[in-house]
Amino acid sequence: MAANRAVAYKEPGKVEVVDTDYPTFELKDGPGVNPANVGRKVPHGAILRTVASNICGSDQHMVRGRTTAPPNLVLGHEITGEVVETGPDVEFIKVGDLVSVPFNISCGRCRNCKERKTGICLNVNPDRPGSAYGYVDMGGWVGGQAQYVLVPYADWNLLKFPDRDQALEKIMDLTMLSDILPTGFHGAVTAGVGVGSTVYVAGAGPVGLAAAASAQLLGAAVVIVGDMNEDRLAQARSFGCETVNVGAGDLPEQLGEILGVPEVDCGIDAVGFEARGHGHGAQAQEAPATVLNSLMSITAAGGALGIPGLYVTGDPGAVDEAAKHGSLSLSLGTGWAKSLSFTTGQCPVMKYNRQLMMAILHGRLEIAKAVNAKAIPLQDAPTGYAEFDAGAATKYVLDPNGYIKA
Amino acid sequence: MAANRAVAYKEPGKVEVVDTDYPTFELKDGPGVNPANVGRKVPHGAILRTVASNICGSDQHMVRGRTTAPPNLVLGHEITGEVVETGPDVEFIKVGDLVSVPFNISCGRCRNCKERKTGICLNVNPDRPGSAYGYVDMGGWVGGQAQYVLVPYADWNLLKFPDRDQALEKIMDLTMLSDILPTGFHGAVTAGVGVGSTVYVAGAGPVGLAAAASAQLLGAAVVIVGDMNEDRLAQARSFGCETVNVGAGDLPEQLGEILGVPEVDCGIDAVGFEARGHGHGAQAQEAPATVLNSLMSITAAGGALGIPGLYVTGDPGAVDEAAKHGSLSLSLGTGWAKSLSFTTGQCPVMKYNRQLMMAILHGRLEIAKAVNAKAIPLQDAPTGYAEFDAGAATKYVLDPNGYIKA
Amino acid sequence: MAANRAVAYKEPGKVEVVDTDYPTFELKDGPGVNPANVGRKVPHGAILRTVASNICGSDQHMVRGRTTAPPNLVLGHEITGEVVETGPDVEFIKVGDLVSVPFNISCGRCRNCKERKTGICLNVNPDRPGSAYGYVDMGGWVGGQAQYVLVPYADWNLLKFPDRDQALEKIMDLTMLSDILPTGFHGAVTAGVGVGSTVYVAGAGPVGLAAAASAQLLGAAVVIVGDMNEDRLAQARSFGCETVNVGAGDLPEQLGEILGVPEVDCGIDAVGFEARGHGHGAQAQEAPATVLNSLMSITAAGGALGIPGLYVTGDPGAVDEAAKHGSLSLSLGTGWAKSLSFTTGQCPVMKYNRQLMMAILHGRLEIAKAVNAKAIPLQDAPTGYAEFDAGAATKYVLDPNGYIKA
Amino acid sequence: MAANRAVAYKEPGKVEVVDTDYPTFELKDGPGVNPANVGRKVPHGAILRTVASNICGSDQHMVRGRTTAPPNLVLGHEITGEVVETGPDVEFIKVGDLVSVPFNISCGRCRNCKERKTGICLNVNPDRPGSAYGYVDMGGWVGGQAQYVLVPYADWNLLKFPDRDQALEKIMDLTMLSDILPTGFHGAVTAGVGVGSTVYVAGAGPVGLAAAASAQLLGAAVVIVGDMNEDRLAQARSFGCETVNVGAGDLPEQLGEILGVPEVDCGIDAVGFEARGHGHGAQAQEAPATVLNSLMSITAAGGALGIPGLYVTGDPGAVDEAAKHGSLSLSLGTGWAKSLSFTTGQCPVMKYNRQLMMAILHGRLEIAKAVNAKAIPLQDAPTGYAEFDAGAATKYVLDPNGYIKA
Repeated sequence: MAANRAVAYKEPGKVEVVDTDYPTFELKDGPGVNPANVGRKVPHGAILRTVASNICGSDQHMVRGRTTAPPNLVLGHEITGEVVETGPDVEFIKVGDLVSVPFNISCGRCRNCKERKTGICLNVNPDRPGSAYGYVDMGGWVGGQAQYVLVPYADWNLLKFPDRDQALEKIMDLTMLSDILPTGFHGAVTAGVGVGSTVYVAGAGPVGLAAAASAQLLGAAVVIVGDMNEDRLAQARSFGCETVNVGAGDLPEQLGEILGVPEVDCGIDAVGFEARGHGHGAQAQEAPATVLNSLMSITAAGGALGIPGLYVTGDPGAVDEAAKHGSLSLSLGTGWAKSLSFTTGQCPVMKYNRQLMMAILHGRLEIAKAVNAKAIPLQDAPTGYAEFDAGAATKYVLDPNGYIKA
Repeated sequence: MAANRAVAYKEPGKVEVVDTDYPTFELKDGPGVNPANVGRKVPHGAILRTVASNICGSDQHMVRGRTTAPPNLVLGHEITGEVVETGPDVEFIKVGDLVSVPFNISCGRCRNCKERKTGICLNVNPDRPGSAYGYVDMGGWVGGQAQYVLVPYADWNLLKFPDRDQALEKIMDLTMLSDILPTGFHGAVTAGVGVGSTVYVAGAGPVGLAAAASAQLLGAAVVIVGDMNEDRLAQARSFGCETVNVGAGDLPEQLGEILGVPEVDCGIDAVGFEARGHGHGAQAQEAPATVLNSLMSITAAGGALGIPGLYVTGDPGAVDEAAKHGSLSLSLGTGWAKSLSFTTGQCPVMKYNRQLMMAILHGRLEIAKAVNAKAIPLQDAPTGYAEFDAGAATKYVLDPNGYIKA
Repeated sequence: MAANRAVAYKEPGKVEVVDTDYPTFELKDGPGVNPANVGRKVPHGAILRTVASNICGSDQHMVRGRTTAPPNLVLGHEITGEVVETGPDVEFIKVGDLVSVPFNISCGRCRNCKERKTGICLNVNPDRPGSAYGYVDMGGWVGGQAQYVLVPYADWNLLKFPDRDQALEKIMDLTMLSDILPTGFHGAVTAGVGVGSTVYVAGAGPVGLAAAASAQLLGAAVVIVGDMNEDRLAQARSFGCETVNVGAGDLPEQLGEILGVPEVDCGIDAVGFEARGHGHGAQAQEAPATVLNSLMSITAAGGALGIPGLYVTGDPGAVDEAAKHGSLSLSLGTGWAKSLSFTTGQCPVMKYNRQLMMAILHGRLEIAKAVNAKAIPLQDAPTGYAEFDAGAATKYVLDPNGYIKA
Repeated sequence: MAANRAVAYKEPGKVEVVDTDYPTFELKDGPGVNPANVGRKVPHGAILRTVASNICGSDQHMVRGRTTAPPNLVLGHEITGEVVETGPDVEFIKVGDLVSVPFNISCGRCRNCKERKTGICLNVNPDRPGSAYGYVDMGGWVGGQAQYVLVPYADWNLLKFPDRDQALEKIMDLTMLSDILPTGFHGAVTAGVGVGSTVYVAGAGPVGLAAAASAQLLGAAVVIVGDMNEDRLAQARSFGCETVNVGAGDLPEQLGEILGVPEVDCGIDAVGFEARGHGHGAQAQEAPATVLNSLMSITAAGGALGIPGLYVTGDPGAVDEAAKHGSLSLSLGTGWAKSLSFTTGQCPVMKYNRQLMMAILHGRLEIAKAVNAKAIPLQDAPTGYAEFDAGAATKYVLDPNGYIKA
């Protein structure tokens, strides 16, 4: 059996590249594997040699020790790969295909999958609807920041790139299809972004930048990105966004200077529960409701909020008792008076990835540039995690098998 | 000039029927009239002789002294009338027409009205988007629990009943078109109710019952109504709903007994900020977030919450400091994990009232029966307010001009 | 190997019940099997013992000799069954499950299936998108008017009834889930039927009646069914529809008598290419465009036409040269002036069958009564075909294994 | 009273600039005015000094003598202007405002307007739903290829540009908001164009080019425009479209060369009833069904057709008897087998014009460049009509009052 190497969570603040098992068509016991999933047969799966695997902001929640993730959990849910083996039930995906893997695992056989709600598949996580690779409490499917990874329900889950050479040429863009691009796009769609919209995106991390680029692709008239990190704001400006430093003044006032009015049609929360006061920068104290409350105040009556930013049911490291149990003090009255609507939850990647792939392949979207993607070898993952956590305006893409050209 | 009589708010707990001015085509100064609206010309208006005018749960917020409503404010935003005069700009509405008046006043000329968002019209309330008759902080348009009332932008706002005799025969149903029927319907629509849905409605007051009847009309498979008031629950059962007494046991468990599973597809909050702990009955202490948190727990992943129940931006009489400023402690993490969506705000009545009128006129919906409508003379309004506040399972309909047959 | 008996097409006007092979997990050669599908392995399939299998109007196109269906083709695409064997790739469907089979076969693994467009699956019919059991030019999947039938992609295709006893009690309703109920419902949905709509359904055959019942379930204010067959019209009236005999007078005029206006919001074509002049009765000459032209004339500006009635690409038996090639003379100018929209094609059954099952199981829809369903033994199939073709106001349900109680 | 000058239709092939009356707030008798509209009071109207007024392809139908337009009919329905007078009922539009006028006149007070279906307003054209300025059988509202024009229901119909200077700077783009830009956009929207779509636009006239630019704005991956006029195709290529000369070979084959597959997701008919055989160029014989049949053949199963191209109810100059009555021989069977949907009719401009204005003002859309807009003085209108009819790849914009800078 071939060897495998992967990025594992060790303890708060620490990841390591370790030797692991080469995958087989069975989900074996291991760190974080749900007992009810141990021994699960995966004849419908495919084994991929990883082409690209990105470090995600939501990985940081685990690495910062904000979750119950066990040591040695193999990380990585943003996976692009080449198929090297297929199980006996795989009919249409073939060895040699280059494919994008949606971060949310789904079966293609339950009610929710049949309704395109693949973010809350009923059959992959014994605990509750919804699953992901390499993530705490998500069923125990092994992460893909590794040389090889198993993908279940391959015919359903995998998005095949039509042409191998073309795909490798655009691989830094295409690798964003596994998570942040559809996640940002979902944020924009559920915020009601359309042709001519004015949009505010809270957070200039990779998901925020992807939401901003998505809003542009959807025809928004103006996209404004807010953060306290000037490097990330510069990144947003690099592809035509307006920006506001939320630590540098009143948000409605700053919007008014850009738009002539202190409000936008559409609000996107690309920050989530680790938001900080006085906006959402790194220096300020945590204030988990601050982004949502601020979005309610600056979204015009009749508008909508897309909330791709993660909110958790429990957060042992939270600032106060309420937040520890996932409760937030929201000024819902403000939202109600303005008839706002709110959409939360994981992005159902399969609803969007094919169309976004088309946009990339036909040159309509330079998402790698927008998020400042940077390929690094697998063994440099610890550095990537550290730099990203320190606020680098960079999206780190692991290249475990040398597919990515300089 | 003809005289007029109307129901006025006097002080917490007290309303009176008083003599007032007969309306003219101008908004004159008076209790609660926004200074910027004083003297506003209304050549586009119509004066109605009131056929029916209902007491609404949201009137009770004012009467209980939970708002800043000034003494002598004339109440009433659920109006059906006969046109007795039209202003010079009215072209299609004619004297003699029997009409339903949407409770939210709108101009038909601003961006929001053009987009069918008449609940947040930009031109009728100088303070903020959205307006209503006889309501505090809503612009100052005089209420319609009166013999006569002025309706601005008559061609736009008024829904004409096609046949006078047919309308008078169904007047107890048709009077619900001004507010609670579309409001309940909007709750159901925004909760995603469709053919085959399972639905839970929190609150068996008139809006809750209207939401339940609407859910049935939309094809729901099962509609379950929860409350602590047994009379109101009996009312819900009278037209085929299942019910749960939320004070009598665990909600998910009770749902499980009815459905086989402890959750529903669609949740509707027909209670709002005056919710009470241990569910939402009269005996318990106020707990403004309790209904929303409970709905998040019993709505299935991928579901939606329609929130017609009112949440306010400020509530001087609230139980705690946060609630006084309209903040609620919401377990948003639960909602996020389930990918729930939420829709708040006033119902844009004009989006639904014509189609609901058609359903009534063609015998598809017996809403008067569902909400146990009861006509009373104008002078009995104080009794109606008191009985409704005490929890009567009755929707009171004022009959100021004797149109309604026994 | 167990024996099997099935209804086979023999020659124009003739079907017979014949001995056939018991299914295996492979699509073997046989009448009408697409060469490219011969030998196709079906490890993802399930073998069903048929509980109910209905005769469909579209079967009649073949039996009347209007298609190129080869002799001995086993008919039947409206199938409900009990699972007796599952292939090795089937994970969630179990032996003993009672299930509804969507008439359109789909793989659950192609782009269209992932987008819920299961009526045009790309992987089951080598000729073109879309497939069905027991139907000419649809891939060659063996029909289910038989004791046993193979269903491919069982986890994807099959809709399991939650409770066996409950299901058998409502089996005459549930058997309509395989085709005519969702097909009629799709017609209503794509015609824009909603709460308060006025609806005209052309054709009172089983699909027309199902469309009418669906329109009611969707909240239509008035549903009017037109035909020239008085028995079928009586059937429509039996569940609250209005009716017009299209041979007995001018259609707009007759609608005007019912509605006060000579037009409806929504038009549904439940007739298709075998329409007849002077409306669509049996006595008149064929006039394939007559239904669509008449629907364009009586649907109000801004309305929509749902077209579940089948239109074919070629019809050797057509009345004129154009119709032989599937061309119709349509007064599109009329439709354009009224801004009408049109939706054609097979119903994607999986989009609707679960929610319609819920409506049936919870007593919201008595579809068996609406279409006058009648169970007959398998051997009586020839009589059923003949009576149905003669215009009986009856939906024939074959009961090959004695599951259906009298 | 000030004088007025306007473009009038004189006889087939001939338009002239003539002296006409300055408008008043009444619709007076004149060429083409519906008798029932004569003397109609317009206190809700505004008189505009025309800033720009474009020549439209649909004007050509009249000028070619293909309609019953009477001599001396004043033409022009694509109007941008400055408000110089307002009627007594106008409340929000002010003298001095620069505004875009939707070509379809609507009242803002009927059922259809309240449902945003302003293309089929019930109150402006006594003959049938829907109206327009300067157009035969559309009510008789005087055309705007003139120095001054009356716009009824000004608060409802007019779209005000937020800033005068900014508007004048982009006036050549903004003038397209009155018709062709929303019309093309509507074609794209109703064809289902979204992010990642592949799109084919039949016809490279101004509407086709606007549809193509709109498809890009909506995020389409590839937009292909087909025509037989090489100049117009060059124009399409100038802003990034692919093109095919439909006279130069098989259409599916040409699409296959561009896309790798011979079909697209979305088809747009920007040609209409004056289509010509062998595609739709000027040399070929008329074949009114050719574009729609060809679109059905090259649109993928599950796709949609947007049909902004005009189809008429009667066409005295048509090639055959059927076409004279607006009937077309359509291969509907092809469409049905592919589950296609079709949307016809006038674009309801008000549904889109505000958002498209935002896109223009914020630099997201250079529509003037895309359609090669060219300003000419009013007196040069006859030349403009002639050149446009001869196939010039130019959109002619009349500048009757010298607002447009060179």
